[in-house]
Amino acid sequence: MIDAISFNEGTLRYLDQRYLPLREEHISTKDHREAIEAIKTLAVRGAPLIGVAAAYTVILGINSYRGDKEGFPCFFGNLIADVEASRPTAVNLFFATKKLKAVYDRNFNSDSLEVLFAKMLFEARQIHDDEIANCDAMAQHGVRQIREDLAEILKTRKLNVLTHCNTGTLATGGSGTALGVIKLAWQEGLIEKVITAESRPLLQGLRLTAWELEQEKIPFFSISDSSSAFLMQRGMIDFGIVGADRIAANGDTANKIGTCAHALSAWHHNIPFYIAAPVSTIDITLSDGTQIPIEERSADELRTIFGTQVATSTTPVINYAFDVTPGKFLRGIITDKKAVVGDYLNGLGQLFAE
Amino acid sequence: MIDAISFNEGTLRYLDQRYLPLREEHISTKDHREAIEAIKTLAVRGAPLIGVAAAYTVILGINSYRGDKEGFPCFFGNLIADVEASRPTAVNLFFATKKLKAVYDRNFNSDSLEVLFAKMLFEARQIHDDEIANCDAMAQHGVRQIREDLAEILKTRKLNVLTHCNTGTLATGGSGTALGVIKLAWQEGLIEKVITAESRPLLQGLRLTAWELEQEKIPFFSISDSSSAFLMQRGMIDFGIVGADRIAANGDTANKIGTCAHALSAWHHNIPFYIAAPVSTIDITLSDGTQIPIEERSADELRTIFGTQVATSTTPVINYAFDVTPGKFLRGIITDKKAVVGDYLNGLGQLFAE
Repeated sequence: MIDAISFNEGTLRYLDQRYLPLREEHISTKDHREAIEAIKTLAVRGAPLIGVAAAYTVILGINSYRGDKEGFPCFFGNLIADVEASRPTAVNLFFATKKLKAVYDRNFNSDSLEVLFAKMLFEARQIHDDEIANCDAMAQHGVRQIREDLAEILKTRKLNVLTHCNTGTLATGGSGTALGVIKLAWQEGLIEKVITAESRPLLQGLRLTAWELEQEKIPFFSISDSSSAFLMQRGMIDFGIVGADRIAANGDTANKIGTCAHALSAWHHNIPFYIAAPVSTIDITLSDGTQIPIEERSADELRTIFGTQVATSTTPVINYAFDVTPGKFLRGIITDKKAVVGDYLNGLGQLFAE
Repeated sequence: MIDAISFNEGTLRYLDQRYLPLREEHISTKDHREAIEAIKTLAVRGAPLIGVAAAYTVILGINSYRGDKEGFPCFFGNLIADVEASRPTAVNLFFATKKLKAVYDRNFNSDSLEVLFAKMLFEARQIHDDEIANCDAMAQHGVRQIREDLAEILKTRKLNVLTHCNTGTLATGGSGTALGVIKLAWQEGLIEKVITAESRPLLQGLRLTAWELEQEKIPFFSISDSSSAFLMQRGMIDFGIVGADRIAANGDTANKIGTCAHALSAWHHNIPFYIAAPVSTIDITLSDGTQIPIEERSADELRTIFGTQVATSTTPVINYAFDVTPGKFLRGIITDKKAVVGDYLNGLGQLFAE
């Protein structure tokens, strides 16, 4: 099994993802400053995994505290600020620090530091365990939906599935969102091959998803992103499933750039295309995808690849990190609570009413 | 102006395209073996340009001949074989050698070597001039069609155009096929910006088309291939135009991988998408695109970029070099004879009947 992140006997162990798949390096540290650097430098990446890493980083920090109870509030405030500054746009990081601050707020006055630290470690582990449980729940709901939607094909053969970017253990700490569904579907004998779109500009599909599938011994091949339409035309893809960064109330979904093109093509070819994402990804206050802000990232992500320059430093580039896939292109949105199909406006709303 | 290839006073001058846009190197040579190496190593690339380079390479070869008339047939046979072996899959190369062989066959018995060589040089120049004239004709027909199809938008503003791969001077020796149309449209004041899809795996859009537009001072920006659907959704693209490797009788078009995804998305968003290609690209004997064989190229084209390894050497990859765009996604096919719109089966057929 892939050990993307773990915490034992006061030591954080993480896989440095920057050099994957060419070099596989696990780092062990008790130093919270080193852990903060790992988040800053993208050695640890993937929204949910950053949340888990941030939680354990706070634990490393408090473990290093040698002062008395009186001095702790100031130390803790600085620690949280340092951790939050490591990736200021990572929402999951703030989820994690918020939860640990809540434990602190509830217990600081009544508990000894020793008891308080034990409660905070318990909370950090809980954040990690929740990610794992969310992935497992999504996998169950997703596989059930796929069995239903693709029952006809499954009578005669296994399925070829397209995915994009990396949504597995390397991104979540659990089995994954979309990749978690794929892994369970593989274990249950439904999958022939996984097709990983390389995911320009940073190539997470070609590098990370490919590496993860190789570790899990799941058969796959990688393609350039723009090949998916042609593979669908040739009948080489039976369904697609990807993760999400943010989902609006009507099912419009922001995800890694390229998702919209895959989904549009799937819709045109009558191929089911799914989003797998925890309920926390859904922002029910956004009525549709036009309200989701889309980050533009550095032009150098296209102009240089792994440190190798491929275009001049003055080549103008527009590099949207994400795109918005209209809900109508999606067969279903697989959450940790259930699979929502068809009427997203009601279906997603109900997740919050229940 | 860009000097991709030229021939003066017995010297071939070509732009080594391998290091563009980072290094711009013009090579001058009288040695046909050096010219053959340039074709082999892709220093000169692009189907029509290879044809022009092959013709001039034959001229360099015969210029080096120091024997008598009796020995020439054997020398010439070997020379043609060597040139043809430099890129055995390049159709235009064989067009060029075939034309020069025809000049030889018609004239060898009656002419002195000196006169024969002069006729062959004339034929080589003719091959180059034909490419230039074809490009100019396509540009005229294309711009007329764009003015007609996009008249409504042109009443209020200029157009943003998407293109893919490289189809300009670097590929043709003339102004280009699709890029030739774009250049003329720019000169006539119709274009706001050109959007060059980077064209993975070999990045001809990000490297070569970007370089060419910079030379011509035409405003542009580059994007990852999979961004086009999102840009169309946001209204950032008014039309698309690309080249072709082969066109079937019903308009189905084989072109650089990624074309089909752009065209499908354009069709969905009701954005005109054109092919620009000389009549010689149309194979009227193929009833539809399923009969066009699609070349699979080396997996290493994805696994390494500009010599930098990005995936392990064992990562499985499917790397189709081309895809097939159904004719129904196309607003029109711009040829050197005329623009064919609507009913391709009749329209393309007429090109050959006339």
